[in-house]
Amino acid sequence: MAGGDDLKLLGMWASPFVLRVKLALSLKGLSYEYVEEDLRNKSELLLKSNPVHNKVPVLIHDGKPVCESSVILQYIDEAFAGTGPPLLPADPYERAIARFWAAYIDDKMLAAWTQASRGKTEEDRAEGMKQSLATVETLEGALRDCGKGKPFFGGDNVGYVDVVLGGMLGWVRANEELQGAKPFDPERTPLLAAWADRFWSLEAVEPVMPDVSRVIEFGKARQAAAAAGAGN
Amino acid sequence: MAGGDDLKLLGMWASPFVLRVKLALSLKGLSYEYVEEDLRNKSELLLKSNPVHNKVPVLIHDGKPVCESSVILQYIDEAFAGTGPPLLPADPYERAIARFWAAYIDDKMLAAWTQASRGKTEEDRAEGMKQSLATVETLEGALRDCGKGKPFFGGDNVGYVDVVLGGMLGWVRANEELQGAKPFDPERTPLLAAWADRFWSLEAVEPVMPDVSRVIEFGKARQAAAAAGAGN
Repeated sequence: MAGGDDLKLLGMWASPFVLRVKLALSLKGLSYEYVEEDLRNKSELLLKSNPVHNKVPVLIHDGKPVCESSVILQYIDEAFAGTGPPLLPADPYERAIARFWAAYIDDKMLAAWTQASRGKTEEDRAEGMKQSLATVETLEGALRDCGKGKPFFGGDNVGYVDVVLGGMLGWVRANEELQGAKPFDPERTPLLAAWADRFWSLEAVEPVMPDVSRVIEFGKARQAAAAAGAGN
Repeated sequence: MAGGDDLKLLGMWASPFVLRVKLALSLKGLSYEYVEEDLRNKSELLLKSNPVHNKVPVLIHDGKPVCESSVILQYIDEAFAGTGPPLLPADPYERAIARFWAAYIDDKMLAAWTQASRGKTEEDRAEGMKQSLATVETLEGALRDCGKGKPFFGGDNVGYVDVVLGGMLGWVRANEELQGAKPFDPERTPLLAAWADRFWSLEAVEPVMPDVSRVIEFGKARQAAAAAGAGN
């Protein structure tokens, strides 16, 4: 990292999208100032930095804001190409495969998980859970076929897909208690279950991960608020 | 393009996502074999090439399939970096801005347009139309602020965002008749209206664009099928 770089991350501790950015910065060995946002009372800086979505994460680099987690991850990889390990591989086809699976996690897996936990009716939530299991099995296949026995989606080292999926691991673990479901089940999806343990215990990852008991509390409060009709 | 490159595009003529890929290939000056798919009776090649989504577009390069239009566009830009003009700029921050607006078009604008044309109730569709106009106005602001008076989102030349949005222009024009709406209105969004005319008339673009009267016919048939409860 060049001496003059000033990095500030606007985040919210329980957000899997913010966690992705924390993971990427940590893996790259980049230091930054972290600013926790109160999403019920967003800062002027957040509103000014992301006027289109008003959402975290926002990474501000030398005063210039970058928004949307997948955009931020690629920005970090490109702006700090000489610092730390790359997130995306060099080969165009391997980059395409990584982007494909990252989009799959965002578009399919996350949508199914959201439906499973926040669907309006019990039927909705049951359908979401069914879809969730199907997406996890598809991803197990991706890890088997693309990983070719390697420990990470990125091969021997953590890469873009690992970071995108890794951002969700706090909620994956919390949901084991909140929903009584084990999304990465050692019986059904042994590769993903082993990947999750391997990823979490990495030196650059573990200190960044959220306290699961705190995520569980947060999830319970959200469930209670939803049940009381307060929504969120 | 290296002499040995074999490019095959599996598509469907009315798809805005397929059109993006055709536009990128044309702008890059790459020749390819186009295979029109019957989406009610998908080919073995499509099912084998995109087993996760079973969708077009798929670009097959020397036998290796790349799926998802935004992934394909970036693949074309990276795999054929030495051929034709680049789609994404070289500067990491400008790349991030381009990716941000491309994601906005996919996540916000397209969702609103789909709701406006295919919402289940009249209220749904009216809300979709309201959101559509808001997204178009946001994009007008992006063209004004990012373009800084330049003719395209990419600056002096067509770039990634131009191609992503350009893929939708056939439907934009068709919807003027189908919905009696002018999404890129010269009064309300003069920059986008002028951009659309400028983009469409480019030498590399015009031959690739669909026949609008055919899109209108296709849209009417789909509306009729939806009204008859057949869905699509």
